[in-house]
Amino acid sequence: MNAPHDLPDLARRLGLTREPLPASSKSYLTGSRPDLRVPQRDIRLTNGELVSVYDTSGPYTDPTADIDVKRGLPSVRGAWIEERGDTESYAGRERQAIDDGGKARDGERIEALRAQAAALQRTPRRARAGANVTQMHYARRGIVTPEMEYVALRENGRREWMAEYLADAGREQRLRGDARGARIPEIITPEFVRDEVARGRAIIPCNINHPEVEPMAIGRNFRVKINANIGNSAVTSSIEEEVEKLVWAIRWGADNVMDLSTGRDIHTTRDWILRNSPVPIGTVPIYQALEKVGGIAEDLTWEIFRDTLVEQAEQGVDYFTIHAGVRLPFVPLTANRRTGIVSRGGSIMAKWCIAHHRESFLYEHFEEICEIMKAYDVAFSLGDGLRPGCASDANDEAQFAELRTLGELTQIAWKHDVQTMIEGPGHVPMHMIQANMDEQLKHCHEAPFYTLGPLTIDIAPGYDHIASAIGAAMIGWMGTAMLCYVTPKEHLGLPDRDDVKQGIIAYKIAAHAADVAKGHPGARARDDALSKARFEFRWTDQFNLGLDPETARDFHDETLPKDSSKVAHFCSMCGPKFCSMKITQEVRDYAAQQAADAGMAQKSAEFKAAGGELYIPISKG
Amino acid sequence: MNAPHDLPDLARRLGLTREPLPASSKSYLTGSRPDLRVPQRDIRLTNGELVSVYDTSGPYTDPTADIDVKRGLPSVRGAWIEERGDTESYAGRERQAIDDGGKARDGERIEALRAQAAALQRTPRRARAGANVTQMHYARRGIVTPEMEYVALRENGRREWMAEYLADAGREQRLRGDARGARIPEIITPEFVRDEVARGRAIIPCNINHPEVEPMAIGRNFRVKINANIGNSAVTSSIEEEVEKLVWAIRWGADNVMDLSTGRDIHTTRDWILRNSPVPIGTVPIYQALEKVGGIAEDLTWEIFRDTLVEQAEQGVDYFTIHAGVRLPFVPLTANRRTGIVSRGGSIMAKWCIAHHRESFLYEHFEEICEIMKAYDVAFSLGDGLRPGCASDANDEAQFAELRTLGELTQIAWKHDVQTMIEGPGHVPMHMIQANMDEQLKHCHEAPFYTLGPLTIDIAPGYDHIASAIGAAMIGWMGTAMLCYVTPKEHLGLPDRDDVKQGIIAYKIAAHAADVAKGHPGARARDDALSKARFEFRWTDQFNLGLDPETARDFHDETLPKDSSKVAHFCSMCGPKFCSMKITQEVRDYAAQQAADAGMAQKSAEFKAAGGELYIPISKG
Repeated sequence: MNAPHDLPDLARRLGLTREPLPASSKSYLTGSRPDLRVPQRDIRLTNGELVSVYDTSGPYTDPTADIDVKRGLPSVRGAWIEERGDTESYAGRERQAIDDGGKARDGERIEALRAQAAALQRTPRRARAGANVTQMHYARRGIVTPEMEYVALRENGRREWMAEYLADAGREQRLRGDARGARIPEIITPEFVRDEVARGRAIIPCNINHPEVEPMAIGRNFRVKINANIGNSAVTSSIEEEVEKLVWAIRWGADNVMDLSTGRDIHTTRDWILRNSPVPIGTVPIYQALEKVGGIAEDLTWEIFRDTLVEQAEQGVDYFTIHAGVRLPFVPLTANRRTGIVSRGGSIMAKWCIAHHRESFLYEHFEEICEIMKAYDVAFSLGDGLRPGCASDANDEAQFAELRTLGELTQIAWKHDVQTMIEGPGHVPMHMIQANMDEQLKHCHEAPFYTLGPLTIDIAPGYDHIASAIGAAMIGWMGTAMLCYVTPKEHLGLPDRDDVKQGIIAYKIAAHAADVAKGHPGARARDDALSKARFEFRWTDQFNLGLDPETARDFHDETLPKDSSKVAHFCSMCGPKFCSMKITQEVRDYAAQQAADAGMAQKSAEFKAAGGELYIPISKG
Repeated sequence: MNAPHDLPDLARRLGLTREPLPASSKSYLTGSRPDLRVPQRDIRLTNGELVSVYDTSGPYTDPTADIDVKRGLPSVRGAWIEERGDTESYAGRERQAIDDGGKARDGERIEALRAQAAALQRTPRRARAGANVTQMHYARRGIVTPEMEYVALRENGRREWMAEYLADAGREQRLRGDARGARIPEIITPEFVRDEVARGRAIIPCNINHPEVEPMAIGRNFRVKINANIGNSAVTSSIEEEVEKLVWAIRWGADNVMDLSTGRDIHTTRDWILRNSPVPIGTVPIYQALEKVGGIAEDLTWEIFRDTLVEQAEQGVDYFTIHAGVRLPFVPLTANRRTGIVSRGGSIMAKWCIAHHRESFLYEHFEEICEIMKAYDVAFSLGDGLRPGCASDANDEAQFAELRTLGELTQIAWKHDVQTMIEGPGHVPMHMIQANMDEQLKHCHEAPFYTLGPLTIDIAPGYDHIASAIGAAMIGWMGTAMLCYVTPKEHLGLPDRDDVKQGIIAYKIAAHAADVAKGHPGARARDDALSKARFEFRWTDQFNLGLDPETARDFHDETLPKDSSKVAHFCSMCGPKFCSMKITQEVRDYAAQQAADAGMAQKSAEFKAAGGELYIPISKG
C-alpha cells in the first residue's frame, strides 16, 4: 500500500499538466440520467459572451478533479455496463513475464512501477456465454445506449451561443458548406447515433474494460476526429513520460490515442495509459506479439497472437489495428514499388506469409478474431499494411487489392456485429486523393475511413505535419471520419512533447477545415466568434478562441509586449498609425450614416469640415 | 568613397547568409548567348547522383560571388535592355525629403545609410518617346527576348537526372497528374514563353530599372511560384534587417518579394532592397503615398500618387499592387460584413471614396497609370482591396464585384500591352475555393491569379501558415500562378527571421503539392529521388533533398545523435531491432527470388532451415 502523502509527489514527478486553458472552465451537459455528464470547455470572453467547445481533455483540465495516476480515472461507464447484465467478471488471463517483452528492464524501480500497474488493473469483464456486447449489436436491436446518448450530446455541444453566428448561414447558401455525400442533421439525436452505428457508418470505440472512457463517435456524419500516436521505443522514452504524453495529447485536442509501443515494458505501459485515459486507446497487437517471439516474424503463431488479443482486450484497449488484408497473393504486387511495404504491421505479415508460403493467419482466423472482439466490444481498425510509402506508389494495385479485401472483412465483422473502421494512406498526391475516398466508399460500404494524412509530397522532411495536413483536410472534407496525425519528426525520429503538440494542432486545423467545408452545423460558429473578436480588437478573446491561446499570445507579445496593447485599437502588424481594421470600422460607421441620409455630397463636405481624422492621434498623448 | 577594407565589416554587421545549402553547389545553364546564364542548385548525393533544382537564392549562395551590399548585385539584363535601343537614360525625378515619410529618422547613422543608398541608385532609364518596353509588347510583336529564353531554361531545369524518375509516369496514367485546364508542355521553349506572355497568361516582372533581376515567369502553365512579404514598420525593424530578410527569404525559396514597408525611411529601404535583389520586387505604392500626406487618406491626390509611381518605377520596382477595383459603389456592399475591409490599400481607397463621395482616382486615372507602367515595364498586380477578412465574408458580392472590375481593368492594361496579374483572397473555406478560381478565369481572361493563402479556417492564430497552406495548395492546383505566403505571426505581429522561414517552407510545400498534382513535368522527380534515398537508408541524401536540410538533420540527430546512425540501416522511429523498411527490403529480395523459382513451397522450407533471421543481431556486437 502506498501512503497517501506520497501521491502528490508522484503526480509532480510525472509532471501532469493540470491547468485549464486560458479563460476556460469545464462544464457538463447532463443527459437523461444523472450519471450521464458530457464535458464541455466554456471560454469566457471579455465582452461577457460564453463560447463552449468540444472538449477531449478529460478530468485533467477540471481543477476540482482529484487525479491520482496510481489510482486511475473514475469510471464513467461502469454502471451502464453493469446494468446491461450481459457481462461477467472473471479471473482473466494469467500475467506472463513475456508480456513486457523479451528484454524487460530489471531493477527495483521498474518492479515498483509494474506492481503499481498491476494494482491499477481492474478485474476484467467479458460477455456472458453467447452474449454480444458491442454497441453495434445493441444498435441493431434498436437499443439506444447511454454511450449513444452521450455521443449525441457531445456532438451537438451548446447550440445556444452559436445561434447569432449561424443565423446568416440560414440566409446564405454560400455559408452552408458542401457535404459531398455526408448527411449531417441539424441536431444529432441519440436515435440518429444508434442508426449510424447500426448501419456501420459510425463506431463508438469503448471496450467494456475501459469504463473510464468518455464516449465519442467516429463516422462521416459526425465531427471529423483526430488520432495522436504515442509509444515507448527501444531507443528512448520511459513509462512516466507516456502518461503525460497522453494528457498532453488530449489537452490539445486528440480524440483518440494509439499506443504504438514496440519495446520493453509494453504491457505495463498500457496499464498505466488505459487506467488514466478518458479517450479511446488503440493498439497494433502484432507489435507486442512480435516482441514475444524475440522479433522473429516467421516465429509468430496464431496462438501467440490470439493470446495477445485477449491480454489487451482484458486491459481495455478500445480498438485493434489488424492487418488481415495483407494476403499472400498481394505481397508480390509490391515488388516493383519505389518504397515497398512501409507499414510495420504489413511488413511483418508479408514476411510471415512468404517465409511460410502460407496465407496470413490473420485472414484465415478472422472469424475467431471477431469472436474475441465482440466479447469485449473491441472495434476493428482494419490496417492498411500495403499503403504507399511515397507519392509514386500511391493508388497502385497492391494498395487497392488490400482495400477490397478490407471491404470483404468488414462484411464478416458486421456479421458478428463488430464495430469496424478502415485505415487508409499515407502518401497520396492531391489529384489522387478523391480516388482513395471513392474506392473506400465503394468497397467498404461506408465503414468509417481513418487515414494517415495523406502526405501530398515527399520533399518536406521536418515539415510533414504540414505536407500531410493538406491531404488530411481534403480527405476529411471528402468523407474521412478520423485523421491520424503526423508530427514534424515523421520519417526522422521520435516526436517529443512539442512535436506531439505541433502535430495535433496541424490536424485540428485539418479536421476543422473539413467540418467547415462539409457544413457541419455549428462548426463555423467558433471561427465567426474569433473573427468578431479580431475585428473588435478584443485581442485576449482572439487568443483564447484559437486552438493554441498561449502561442497566439506569445507571438503577439513578441512585437507588442505591453499589456496595454491587448486593448489597443490597432494591430501589431501595422502599428497605431496605419491600421486597415480601424479604417474599416470608420468606413462602416460612415457608410451607415450615408445610407440613412440621402444627401451624400453634403455629408462629404461636412466630413471634410469636421477634420475627418483617420487615426488616433497618439503623438498628442 | 568607401575604403575597400570596410566592406567585409559591413557585410558581417549585416549578417548576410552566404553559405550554400548542404551538399549544394551553384551551376549555370547557358543559353543562346554567353551572358544568358540560368542558375541551378546541384545537390550532390552520397551515391554519386546529382539532383538539380530550381534556385531562387541568387548569387548569395555562390561562394565565388563577390557580394557587397553597398555596391549592389551585378547587372544580369543591362546589355539586353541596352541592345533593344528603345530606352534612354535621364536625370530622373528629384529626390524629395518627404520620400522617406513625414517622420524620417535623424542622426548621423541614418544619414550615412541614406547617402550610401543614394550612391547605389542607378541612373534611371525609361522608354524613349512613343516606345513601349514591356515584355508583353515584345511578345505580341513576335520577339523572343533573352528574358523569355531565360525563363524557358529555368522552368525546364536539368531534365537529364529526372529521366529515371519520370520514366514510370510514361507508363502509368495515375502518375501524370490532373492539370485542371492548365496546358503545360513536356519541354518549355522560348517560343512557348513568348506565346504565354503575349496572351497575358503569364508575366515576367522585370522593370528596366531592375537589371539585377534573374527573370522568372508567373503563369498557370509554369511552376507555381510563391511570394514573401518583408517590410519595416513604425513599431520595429531597421533597414539593415531588411536586406538580410530578402537574402533569407530567397534562400528558402521565395520567387518574389514584396516590400510592404509603411513607416519611415521607405524610399531608402527600397533602394537597398532593389539593388541587392535577384528576384522581382513588388510594392503597394499607396502605402508610401499615404506617408507623404501624413497618414490622412482623404488628403491623397492623383498627383501625389502619380509622383510616387514614377519615383518607385525609377528605383526599379517590378510590380505595383494597385487597388483600382475599389470603386465607390462597392464600398456599401461591405457594410454588413463580419470584418469589413481588411486590405490596407482597400480601406485607404474606400475611405478616400466616401470622404470625397467620388469615384476612386485610381480607377479614373487607370489609363494614365498604364502609360507609366509601359515606360518602365512595371507589371500590374491588381489588388483585391475588398477581399474577405474571415471565412463568413468569403465570396460575397463586394468581393466578386471588385473581381469583375479587375477583369475590365485587365483588358485596359492589355490594350497598353502592360503585364498584369490579379490578386485574390484571403479567407475562404475549402468548399468555396473553386468558385474563386472559376470566377477569376471567367472574368479576368486567364491573367495570372495571385492569392494570399487562402486561409481555410479562422481559429488558428499562431498557425495561419498551416491553415492557409491547405487553401494555397488547393487553389494552386486549380490554376493559381503565385501564392503569397502567410507566416505564423499573421494577425498577431511582425514576422521575425524564423517566421519568414516557416511561412516560406509552408508555401514551398503548397506550391510543390500543386505542381505535382497538376503533373508539371519534372516536379515529381525530386520527391522520387528523396523517397529512393529514404528507402535505401541514405539519411544524408534524404535531408539534403528536402526543403530544409538543416532542420531535417537536427530533428534526426535529436533522437540518434551519433554520426554512425546516418548510415544505419534502420530508422530512428523504430530502432535497430524493428524496422519496416528493412523488413521490406528483405521481403522484396525474397519475393524476387520466389518469382524466379517455381518451387515456392520448397523455398519456404529452405528459408526456415537457413534460420531466416529478420534483424541485424546487434546484441552480438
